[in-house]
Amino acid sequence: MKHLTDIKQLSASQIQRIFELAEQIKSSSKKKNSKRLRGKTIANLFFENSTRTLVSFELAGKRLGAHVVNVDLSRSSTTKGESLKDTLLTLQAMQIDSFVIRHPENHICRQIEAWLQPTIRLVNAGDGNHQHPTQALLDIYTILQHKKNIESLKISIIGDIKHSRVANSLVDALHILGNRKVHLYGPQQLLPLSNDKAHICTSMQSTLEQSDVIVMLRIQKERMAEHNIPDLENYHQNFGLNRKTLGLANPDCIVMHPGPINRGVEISSEVADNSPSVILQQVENGVLIRQAVLAFLLL
Amino acid sequence: MKHLTDIKQLSASQIQRIFELAEQIKSSSKKKNSKRLRGKTIANLFFENSTRTLVSFELAGKRLGAHVVNVDLSRSSTTKGESLKDTLLTLQAMQIDSFVIRHPENHICRQIEAWLQPTIRLVNAGDGNHQHPTQALLDIYTILQHKKNIESLKISIIGDIKHSRVANSLVDALHILGNRKVHLYGPQQLLPLSNDKAHICTSMQSTLEQSDVIVMLRIQKERMAEHNIPDLENYHQNFGLNRKTLGLANPDCIVMHPGPINRGVEISSEVADNSPSVILQQVENGVLIRQAVLAFLLL
Amino acid sequence: MKHLTDIKQLSASQIQRIFELAEQIKSSSKKKNSKRLRGKTIANLFFENSTRTLVSFELAGKRLGAHVVNVDLSRSSTTKGESLKDTLLTLQAMQIDSFVIRHPENHICRQIEAWLQPTIRLVNAGDGNHQHPTQALLDIYTILQHKKNIESLKISIIGDIKHSRVANSLVDALHILGNRKVHLYGPQQLLPLSNDKAHICTSMQSTLEQSDVIVMLRIQKERMAEHNIPDLENYHQNFGLNRKTLGLANPDCIVMHPGPINRGVEISSEVADNSPSVILQQVENGVLIRQAVLAFLLL
Repeated sequence: MKHLTDIKQLSASQIQRIFELAEQIKSSSKKKNSKRLRGKTIANLFFENSTRTLVSFELAGKRLGAHVVNVDLSRSSTTKGESLKDTLLTLQAMQIDSFVIRHPENHICRQIEAWLQPTIRLVNAGDGNHQHPTQALLDIYTILQHKKNIESLKISIIGDIKHSRVANSLVDALHILGNRKVHLYGPQQLLPLSNDKAHICTSMQSTLEQSDVIVMLRIQKERMAEHNIPDLENYHQNFGLNRKTLGLANPDCIVMHPGPINRGVEISSEVADNSPSVILQQVENGVLIRQAVLAFLLL
Repeated sequence: MKHLTDIKQLSASQIQRIFELAEQIKSSSKKKNSKRLRGKTIANLFFENSTRTLVSFELAGKRLGAHVVNVDLSRSSTTKGESLKDTLLTLQAMQIDSFVIRHPENHICRQIEAWLQPTIRLVNAGDGNHQHPTQALLDIYTILQHKKNIESLKISIIGDIKHSRVANSLVDALHILGNRKVHLYGPQQLLPLSNDKAHICTSMQSTLEQSDVIVMLRIQKERMAEHNIPDLENYHQNFGLNRKTLGLANPDCIVMHPGPINRGVEISSEVADNSPSVILQQVENGVLIRQAVLAFLLL
Repeated sequence: MKHLTDIKQLSASQIQRIFELAEQIKSSSKKKNSKRLRGKTIANLFFENSTRTLVSFELAGKRLGAHVVNVDLSRSSTTKGESLKDTLLTLQAMQIDSFVIRHPENHICRQIEAWLQPTIRLVNAGDGNHQHPTQALLDIYTILQHKKNIESLKISIIGDIKHSRVANSLVDALHILGNRKVHLYGPQQLLPLSNDKAHICTSMQSTLEQSDVIVMLRIQKERMAEHNIPDLENYHQNFGLNRKTLGLANPDCIVMHPGPINRGVEISSEVADNSPSVILQQVENGVLIRQAVLAFLLL
């Protein structure tokens, strides 16, 4: 196991091992001040703006005792081809042990892997609308804090499925863990025609009823015009989660969202801010899971 | 004592306690390399550009052994209402122990406090023209390195009083410590009509004569047009401190400025760069006082 | 030895001492995790955009255990005269031990030195087209990993000599070490008329033949129009290094470049990416040499 660029690289037992590492780190008195990665250097290379994911990885590295450098490339022209390659080879030559990369282009990590020496570790922090594997891990880790028998849960993901690396990674991860009950729903234009690991639903009702876990996705405003979605209020009425639509789900369901949320659009504040929302637990688990992933890859 | 968002939250004895902590840190051999805050995480959230205050807080945290993350939000749209709340709740969920916040809006910390968990600590690094409490503490700490009996000193603050969080905080702090001799002066348009903790002066002469401490404030160029102040030279002639006007004050007075200075505008280079100016001592004490405040709140 | 702002400040034996320090650091088990500079604070003040040099210095400082603060001034108006002076005096008052400065203006360090207290250490990370001393040191350190008797090597530097702080520093450094065989070549408009430490060549052939070391310089596109250089392809044909032109040099020569490279312009990918290119070794040595320089100055 060298890189984590696609959740499909992990087996169920490897996911289990990462969660065990997370538990160990969590229960350690050195949870926020460990020396596990002392002497290691982690470079966060973010080619897209991000506050939450960048800070999450920065804290994960620092709390394990690594040196962390943030290389801000969101305004850089160094994003493609040879120029990107040279940037990576240059940083690699500085004896960096792990790159954490966020990039707007799908499958960029496949290219990057081919350039790097075998000793280096690559973590995909989101590439285009392809994969965001640490998000999938933290999502499942959060589900498991609330539910047993992940393979038998009805998990519904609602929103812009088509452009969502979060949805992709989560569907893949659930498939690896044996769950065959993932349900996807959203505006028709933002929904794939088919998905061999999930059911495509045709109404909020059929999506939500008997759901054990609801994952709401962020709708990006620029997509609305592009895909003829009339307006935010209309979106909320048809695809939003609020007290009323939440009532369709199982009484003991949990509500998740990868953040940042659009209040009143894909989710009402009332639902986002109260039980059974576990949105902030997802954020908390995010740092822990990233610690576990870095330790898993680098030790 | 949970937060330091307004200097008026502190009693005289709490100010005294912070100064004692500063003395302890200063005289320690681990002054720049302590482990007092090991395992703690401090996030600097700056919604206004700042080099000096940001670096001062960054060094204060690092020299106490904390993990420090700078979250650059000066170009962010995340500045108001729910969006700001979600940013803070998200960062809080990452187990951050203390937020240091600079924000253009007055009283923003009151809102923020209401959102945060009881374990978190908030430090106001300047909100609008309201408060800048660590500046007031470092100012008084600097005065006390030169003067005894702070309650009996004549302290004169000159410049754009109306828009100055530095003036506000310092006047409040001096009032807490029993000083009833603060004198304020500046262009009429930049002076409040009245202040129940200070005397409003009507001339440079009456302001400066018998002054023990002179605090010059930065004049912001955009305010000059707005308030019909003719030009920089004219400002210096009427409200600037130079060898000549300094001669009006007590022979053993000290000269302060929160920085950055406008040379030749509110203060001449000759006065800024020589005794009795203590401007750079203020900067030095700034890091120390911020170390003391963080230790005071977090331990 | 207080500052390293110009390579000419170093004697041959001081260069030797820095290389010995680099060897010590390299062979230490704490190479990436030393405590040599624990308690020291290093501020990187970059007034020009830079990724590679900034990260190189950041890692050098962190791997020696120093506190490192990056002060981004590339968008700042604080670049000249009094304003620059105040920024430096302010940061100095925060008990910073060393400034690493990159600035577009030649000889800026001479001004800065005059402002600073005797205890502070200044490292020039590139000023205008004047000097880049740590680059010269890492270049020579890299040469010495491949060649003995530096004084007798034929070293050829090709490209925009006139505007290159890299060429300037390297020619000076080689002169200090007794080498009198530096050859310079490039477009006539980018070549000095004379250089008392190097030979100005008149053809690629005379430059390259019998070369032991070839240093290719980056051509900056904005210079091409300014100096009537027709186009990139034309540049490569006349001044570029590729398999064909490399054939002119000694069979055991090495190829260097300070980076970032323009592939297909001053150097072909084939040459850049294969032996005898040592470009990535230069990058690796860069962090090590900067560690050695910081240790040399600060201990």
